[in-house]
Amino acid sequence: MEKTVKVRVPGTSANCGPGFDTLGVACTIYNDLELTLLPEEKLEIEISGEGADHLPTDARNMVWRAVQTLLQKAHREKEFPGGRMKMLNRVPLSRGLGSSAAAIVAGLKAANILIDNYFSRRELLQIATEIEGHPDNVAPAIFGGFTVSLLHHGRAESYSFQPRLPLKLIVAVPSFSLSTKEARNALPETVPLRDAVFNVSRASLLVAALSRGNARFLRHAFEDALHQPYRAKLIPGMYEVIDAAREAGAIGAAMSGAGPCLIAYTQDHIADVSNAMTGTFRKHGIESRSLVLDIDRRGAHIAKE
Amino acid sequence: MEKTVKVRVPGTSANCGPGFDTLGVACTIYNDLELTLLPEEKLEIEISGEGADHLPTDARNMVWRAVQTLLQKAHREKEFPGGRMKMLNRVPLSRGLGSSAAAIVAGLKAANILIDNYFSRRELLQIATEIEGHPDNVAPAIFGGFTVSLLHHGRAESYSFQPRLPLKLIVAVPSFSLSTKEARNALPETVPLRDAVFNVSRASLLVAALSRGNARFLRHAFEDALHQPYRAKLIPGMYEVIDAAREAGAIGAAMSGAGPCLIAYTQDHIADVSNAMTGTFRKHGIESRSLVLDIDRRGAHIAKE
Repeated sequence: MEKTVKVRVPGTSANCGPGFDTLGVACTIYNDLELTLLPEEKLEIEISGEGADHLPTDARNMVWRAVQTLLQKAHREKEFPGGRMKMLNRVPLSRGLGSSAAAIVAGLKAANILIDNYFSRRELLQIATEIEGHPDNVAPAIFGGFTVSLLHHGRAESYSFQPRLPLKLIVAVPSFSLSTKEARNALPETVPLRDAVFNVSRASLLVAALSRGNARFLRHAFEDALHQPYRAKLIPGMYEVIDAAREAGAIGAAMSGAGPCLIAYTQDHIADVSNAMTGTFRKHGIESRSLVLDIDRRGAHIAKE
Repeated sequence: MEKTVKVRVPGTSANCGPGFDTLGVACTIYNDLELTLLPEEKLEIEISGEGADHLPTDARNMVWRAVQTLLQKAHREKEFPGGRMKMLNRVPLSRGLGSSAAAIVAGLKAANILIDNYFSRRELLQIATEIEGHPDNVAPAIFGGFTVSLLHHGRAESYSFQPRLPLKLIVAVPSFSLSTKEARNALPETVPLRDAVFNVSRASLLVAALSRGNARFLRHAFEDALHQPYRAKLIPGMYEVIDAAREAGAIGAAMSGAGPCLIAYTQDHIADVSNAMTGTFRKHGIESRSLVLDIDRRGAHIAKE
């Protein structure tokens, strides 16, 4: 018997300034997946939008692999050896907006719905974390909102909350991509204790101010000393774009995930901030486009037709 | 003309597990100070309670020095060259419960009231931070509640909030004292990046769970990798006491400030946790007494007679 569902999964921005490997936020930019599980061994994958020209459309496809993983964990893989997938990708690939997390969560979420939500969202978080390697993008992709994640002996724990103040997310998307691996190789093994304190204090203040809705304390709350200084060399003009966003009126700005996208958090001056970011990138020889997004509050969900 | 005021200032516990040099909480244990500013050069200091036998009762007294600093900053020191102070100290000295912060804040708060609240509380925070060197104890002593503090080029910023869940603070006070300087000398210059992430994630989760009132996420939220591992050697049985508190039902436990007090955070099993902590200290040859405290919500304030 064929079963079909269509899910919508948000792109996500990890780190959020001081929250290296910890904080994440779901954004109102979505990938759509229509999944049909088939009782016969057959696989049809149709991709439009981002990555349509080069993402694999066979068994190596990441979304399909997530579907398979979920079915195996539920011991239902023999029932559904094949599938049909139609994807519309809007999240840019390898830019720091959680495209791989979105792919993984889309496959897991859709397959889970088709087996009657066998797993809870917390269980999906654990499965997604095991596939992705870390929870900071998959958590907001699953739960929506702003998320705080940690790993405890390989177990992921994520707390999701809706910030109690309006916040626009302005993302400058450069025309080049960066692999997460390359960005991770730029990091040192050890860091000064004072830099650790720098981030502990700013991440704590960021979470307190967002969760209680007190914008006055956000002024220094998006600063980072743990990863951006080491990765700046991979993104020409990075600090200048961040400074330009703040000068144009943003509360703060930071790398989105491992970059190269840069993200500004603002309450107003949206056009100014957006233009300042792409204009400053251009001065450093980088073409970019900007996305003006809100915080997604739902996370992965069934898409209405 | 003589002017008199009586203020009450809470003891405080800094770090709160993962929030090294960042988090603090005000506790319902208080020092009282009755201050009279005198128009003649005369100084009378009377101390009872903690430190009565050895705290200086002349111009070297820390509370009096704070009074003088505040008057000088307000250009009022010539008007009041002398004073009379009666102190009742309940906060144990050099144990990690913010006795020096309480002394500084008591002097500043009382003197400020006597010059008609010339300075705001935020200004008092800055003056107190300059005297104490860091904001993490003076902030909760001034504002009460749970505080998140940071230093930005020497300027202190502190956000205070009341946790949205009931939390008892159980403090085991060992019979020996530790200087903050000694405890600070035990710390390394650099730390593994993964330990920094460990604390960023736990501090963020702690603040999120407390500020929104979600006890389920507190389970790993009091853990630390940045300072306790290096200071454990200064407190015999430290990790055993922490483990015993958790086994007896506490949500988490940690060093209070730079120790040697250890503090457990709990919602119930108060007697069990208290006995487990002092009993485990005793097994390691350390006599201790325990205090069962609540979170102080007011910070330094005028004491009613």
